[in-house]
Amino acid sequence: MSVLVVGSMAYDAVETPFAEIARALGGSAMFFSAAASYFSPVNLVAVVGNDFDHNDIDFLRERQVDLLGLTTVKGETFRWSGKYADNMIDRQTIYTKLGVFENFDPVLPERYTSSEYVFLANIQPDLQYNVVQQVKNPRFIAMDTMNFWITGTLDELKKTLSVVDALIINDSEVRLLSREANLFIGAKTIQAMGPKTLIVKKGEHGSILVHEDSYFMCPALPVEQVHDPTGAGDTFAGGFMGYLAMAEAVNEAVLRRAVVMGTVMASFCVESFSAQRLKTLTPDEIKARTAQLLTAMRLESDGIWIQP
Amino acid sequence: MSVLVVGSMAYDAVETPFAEIARALGGSAMFFSAAASYFSPVNLVAVVGNDFDHNDIDFLRERQVDLLGLTTVKGETFRWSGKYADNMIDRQTIYTKLGVFENFDPVLPERYTSSEYVFLANIQPDLQYNVVQQVKNPRFIAMDTMNFWITGTLDELKKTLSVVDALIINDSEVRLLSREANLFIGAKTIQAMGPKTLIVKKGEHGSILVHEDSYFMCPALPVEQVHDPTGAGDTFAGGFMGYLAMAEAVNEAVLRRAVVMGTVMASFCVESFSAQRLKTLTPDEIKARTAQLLTAMRLESDGIWIQP
Repeated sequence: MSVLVVGSMAYDAVETPFAEIARALGGSAMFFSAAASYFSPVNLVAVVGNDFDHNDIDFLRERQVDLLGLTTVKGETFRWSGKYADNMIDRQTIYTKLGVFENFDPVLPERYTSSEYVFLANIQPDLQYNVVQQVKNPRFIAMDTMNFWITGTLDELKKTLSVVDALIINDSEVRLLSREANLFIGAKTIQAMGPKTLIVKKGEHGSILVHEDSYFMCPALPVEQVHDPTGAGDTFAGGFMGYLAMAEAVNEAVLRRAVVMGTVMASFCVESFSAQRLKTLTPDEIKARTAQLLTAMRLESDGIWIQP
Repeated sequence: MSVLVVGSMAYDAVETPFAEIARALGGSAMFFSAAASYFSPVNLVAVVGNDFDHNDIDFLRERQVDLLGLTTVKGETFRWSGKYADNMIDRQTIYTKLGVFENFDPVLPERYTSSEYVFLANIQPDLQYNVVQQVKNPRFIAMDTMNFWITGTLDELKKTLSVVDALIINDSEVRLLSREANLFIGAKTIQAMGPKTLIVKKGEHGSILVHEDSYFMCPALPVEQVHDPTGAGDTFAGGFMGYLAMAEAVNEAVLRRAVVMGTVMASFCVESFSAQRLKTLTPDEIKARTAQLLTAMRLESDGIWIQP
C-alpha cells in the first residue's frame, strides 16, 4: 500500500558545533519519503522553485517515490538555515526564506487521490484540511504541526485535528496545544479534539504512543554521536507511516512496531547531514538496528516479580 | 537474603505548588528501607537525635526492617526543607540542618557485617568506603552520590567507586562526574572508574541500566499527578536492591527486572508526602502496577519488521 506525503522540499544551511553545510537537501516531504520508501511506495506532493536541481532527488526516484506531485514554479526553493547549540537539541533559526512555498496550495494528482495512508507534514492547517478533502478513501491520516500554528491559527488547526487519525508532535507542542503541564493529561485533551492516536516525540528520551486508552513508551536508541538532528522528526514520521502502509493494518500491535521503526529510521537520520545516511541504507542495516533497540527494551517474561 | 542500607533518617519540610507539610519523616535510609522491605529483610544503619519520635518508624519495624543499626545520639535529627517548582522537578532547598548527621560515622553491628547486598546512600564518600571495609563477604554493593561530593571530594569519591559494583545516580550527575555531554559515553567513562553497572535516573523520562556492554531503557510509569517527588530516588534504589536480594542472583535479566521494580516503587512514592503511600502498599498493588508498566513496554514478538 502506498503512502502520501504533503510537505516541503527545501535547501538547508546547517551549522553545528562540529561542522557545517551550506546547501543541504532538506524539507519535511523529502526526509519523510526517504525514510518511508524503505517500507512502501510513496506519493510525494511538494513545490520547488526553478532554482531546484532535480538531480538532487534522483535517489528518491530510484527508491519508488512517485514525484508526479512535485511541482516546479518560477521562483526560489524554500530555504532554511539553523545553528545548533552544544547539546545538539536547542537550535536557533538564522533565516527562513519561504520562496515558492509561500503560495503552496497542494492539489493531488488524480492517481494520488486513492492513497489510503496520508501524512500531512508541518504546513498551514487550512492546507492540511484541503488535502484531506481530496483523498477519496483514507484509512489512516496523520499530521504534524508546530508552535507557530498552535498560537497563530488555533481554530484552523482544531478543524484539521477533527478529521485526522493521528497527531505526531513533540512534548513541548503537546503542552502548548493542550495547556496542560502533564503529558498524559495533555494527550487526553488533544484526543478529545479528534485524533485517537498521538505520538509524542521526546528526542533523546524516546517517544510515547497514546492510542485510545493505552500507552506505549518507546526509548530512543543509545546514540553516542549526533551529527545533525535536522529532519529527524519527519524521518520518524516516514518510518512510522511507511511501516503502517506496509503492514496494511492499523491496530495497537502494529502501531507500536511502527513507532519502533520511526525511532530506528530517525536514529540513522541524525548520523549525517541532510538525508545522506538515508540514501545508502540497506534492509540488513535497518534490521540490525531494530534488533539493537529491541534488545535495549527486552525483559525476559518468566521472571518472578514479587513474593506472593 | 537481607539488604543493608547506610544513609540518613530525617524530618523534611516540603512545599509544593499544591500543598505543604511541616514535619514529614524523610531521609535516604528511610525511603530505601520502606521500599526494599516489600522484597527482602533490611538492615538499616542511620543516626537520629534525641528529638526523634521512634513511633514514626513503627511501620519499618513491622515490615522486617532491622533497626539495631539506628543510633540515637544527643542533638537534633537531620532536617531538610525544600520547595518544588510548578513542574514538580526543579526544587529549591530552603535549609539543611545536619544536626547529629554531621558527625555520622557508621559502624555496622556485628550481625550486619555478613550482609551480601549493600546500598550506600548519599553520604560522604569516605564514610561509604569505610562501610565497604566492614562488610565481610559482599555480593553486590551499590552506591548513590551527589554533585556536592563530585565537585568537592572527587578523589575520595573515585576511591569509593573503585570498590563498588553499581552506581545509581541521575543524568546530570553522570555528565558532571564523567565530564561528557553524551550519557552513553559518560556511562563508559564512569564504568572505567570501577562500577560495571550504572543506573542513570532521568525522572519522568525513566532510567537507563548500563551493565557491562549492554543497555536497558526503562520508561517511567505514566503518572498523571505527582504529589511530592521527595525520596523517589532512594525509593527506586530500595525497589532495585530489595529485588536483587530477593532474586539472590545478579545477572542481566535480574538487573533489568530490578530496574523495573525500582521504577514501580518510585511511582508509588511520588503519590503522597513522605513514605505515606509506601506504608500501605499490598503485594497485589505492586503486581498490578508492574503489569501496567510492562504493558506500556510490550511488543508482540511475532511481527514482521521490514520486507526482506
